[in-house]
Order: sequence, then structure tokens, then C-alpha cells
Amino acid sequence: MQEVRTILLSKSVFEDNDRAADKLRRDLREKGVSLVNVMSSPGSGKTTLLIALIRRLALKFRIGVMEADIDSDVDAVTVARETGCRSVQLHTGGMCHLDAGMTAEGLRELGDGLDLIFLENVGNLVCPAEYDTGATANIVILSVPEGADKPLKYPLVFQKSDLVIVSKTDALPYFDFDMEQCRKYIGARNGAAEMIPVSAKTGENMDALENWFIRKII
Amino acid sequence: MQEVRTILLSKSVFEDNDRAADKLRRDLREKGVSLVNVMSSPGSGKTTLLIALIRRLALKFRIGVMEADIDSDVDAVTVARETGCRSVQLHTGGMCHLDAGMTAEGLRELGDGLDLIFLENVGNLVCPAEYDTGATANIVILSVPEGADKPLKYPLVFQKSDLVIVSKTDALPYFDFDMEQCRKYIGARNGAAEMIPVSAKTGENMDALENWFIRKII
Repeated sequence: MQEVRTILLSKSVFEDNDRAADKLRRDLREKGVSLVNVMSSPGSGKTTLLIALIRRLALKFRIGVMEADIDSDVDAVTVARETGCRSVQLHTGGMCHLDAGMTAEGLRELGDGLDLIFLENVGNLVCPAEYDTGATANIVILSVPEGADKPLKYPLVFQKSDLVIVSKTDALPYFDFDMEQCRKYIGARNGAAEMIPVSAKTGENMDALENWFIRKII
Repeated sequence: MQEVRTILLSKSVFEDNDRAADKLRRDLREKGVSLVNVMSSPGSGKTTLLIALIRRLALKFRIGVMEADIDSDVDAVTVARETGCRSVQLHTGGMCHLDAGMTAEGLRELGDGLDLIFLENVGNLVCPAEYDTGATANIVILSVPEGADKPLKYPLVFQKSDLVIVSKTDALPYFDFDMEQCRKYIGARNGAAEMIPVSAKTGENMDALENWFIRKII
């Protein structure tokens, strides 16, 4: 297994995060690199879903992963072990989000020669949505056990996302989750966002999710 | 049904949140009021659990609830309707946490004559733990679908909490959640924290939870 490096991020030197994010996004587009910022609550199954998705996409693209976490490095090690793809762990040192400067620092560590990079942001539906990371696409994962009302309660992250993945659909028989109501709540926040319900466990709709990436990747 | 007021909180005027929190806690103790700060991820079932708990405790105590949310007021209305207890909605205006000044503002709206006040903090395992609200007790709810590894990944909220409620235990047969491993992870973060696994749905262990409150209430 490859070694997984852990980086303790320092506070960004950029005064203006939006400007730094726009510059980073332009640089990525010029190089033909897609950077996908993945946001969600803690425990939404982000890492499990990413592993299932990367196993499919790695047949077509050179993929890297940056795992942001406050403290532990379990995710980066798991992703590297399960997918074999290049992976770095970003420690935020207690900070609740990543900004563009921190993202750029992670990208330097990850190195060149990749087509698609996943940034697994800190598990938090609030703060990560407030800081543009410079990603070329933003995704939010909402898991079935969390409930369909989350777009009402955490509006910004749904407004900022190009795709809402409703994860753990295998748990639908067990929870009172109204998928059509969820679709309406998302539509009210963001008419342009797509919604794809999936289960990494059973594989349900993983084809549709894979196709979304194939369409969107630069 | 009683009317539920919604307050848009303003940024605290206190420079030193810790000092403000200590003063608020002293004032509450002098008045014999317990203020319980409830933290968790989005979708952990906080509101459902609080309703089940308040229905039990309301037979013994005069209870009030402050529901913090970024935008919606669904929780305060639900709690007031389901329990009949005094309830206010606090809008943080996008902020990811409550501080002592904001909590004091909510308490003024709620008014006097209560024994036990629940503060349902913003759904977020990161930022709320960084700001002392002035509460006399801190609780974190971890729901079974989130996974037993959360104390590893969100250390501070577990360090700061007097009690960890593991909620949605009715979902245990469905998820791969190791309760003893979870207990060890919590113990490594905070040897003094108690852990009570409960299900608001089936009522499992709600007696134990009720008794914790009866013991801890001032």
C-alpha cells in the first residue's frame, strides 16, 4: 500500500478567498483537472460512497483524493487502501471548513498528472458552504437517516451544490423519508441542482451517478 | 397552541465569550435553573428525542426550549405543539454556533419561572463545541446511522460533553455500529462522560435517560 501523507493546514494568507478560489478554478480548468468538493453531515457515508464511485471511475480517469478532517487520518488511509488511488489527509487543526488557500496547499501535496480530484470537506452542513474552495463542481450528500427536511434547515449548502446525492437508499424501508418531498425542497433552494438517490451498499443507481461524473468531468 | 416567537440573533457584544458564559452559568445556578446545551450532527433525531424526553420530564419540572436554527422555524413549532412547553426559535442568521451572548438573548425571550431549559444548538459537530454557551450541562447526541467512529473524528464535542446519547438504537440491526467500540472511543476522549444508548421510537432506555436528568438537574 502506498504511504498516505498527512498535512496540517495553516490559515490561508489570502485576504480575499473568493478571488483566490476563482484563480485556483481557472488554473485547474487550464490544466484540464476537475476538482469536486464533497460536502455533507458527519456520518452521511461520504467515504464509503467515494470508494464505490472511485472504483468505477478509476477505469477511465486518473483520480486523486484529499480527505479533510479535524484530527484523524482514518479516511485517507481507507480510501488509499480500498482504491489504490493517490490520497492525502488534510488536517484543519480544529477549523470547521476548507478555503481556497488550504485547498491549493493540498493540491500541491497531491501533485500533477490527475484528471479528477475529490476533496472530501469537513463533515458539516454549515461552514464549508460559506467558503469557495476553488472546486470546479460542488456536491452535497444527504443520507436517508438524516431526513428529507435538511434543505429547509441548511439552505446554503443546497444552494451552492450542482448535485445532491441522496445516499443510503437501502435504508429507505427503515426510515420515514419522502423522496419526492426532498426533491421539492431541493428544487425550492436550487432549481439547477440535480438529485441522484443512490446506495453504495446495494449498488442502486451507481450507474447514474457514474454517468453524471462522466458528463461533468472536464 | 401557544404562539412561538422567532428571534434573529445578533452578534454578541461580549469580547470574551468565556467570561460571559461563566457569568451566565452563575446567574442560572443562583436562580436554580438548569440549562442543557444539546449538540449533534444534522439529522441525529435531536428534536424527536427532546419531545419524548420532555413529555416525561414535564411531569416533574417546568420546562422551556430554545431551538437554534440557521433559517427555518419548524423545530420550535413542532416542540411547542407536541409538548405544550414554552418554546422560542433562535435564528443565527447563517452563523454555525451559539455563544453565551446569543444564549442570554434567547433566555430573556423565554422568560422566568422555569426549572429546566433545553438549548438545541445548530446541527453541527464542530463549531458549537468551540463556544461555551453558559449552559450548566452539555450533551452530544450521536445517532446509530452516523457510525461509531465519530468520537475519533470530532474530538472536541465529545471532550466537552457530560453525556453522550447514542440515539436511534432501533436502527442497530440495520447498521454496522459497534456499541462497545463507541464506548471505548468516547472514554478515550473523555473519561468522565456517561454514555446512554436510547431509542425514542421504541422507548428503549428512556427511563435511564430520564433518571440522568433527574440526578443532574439543579
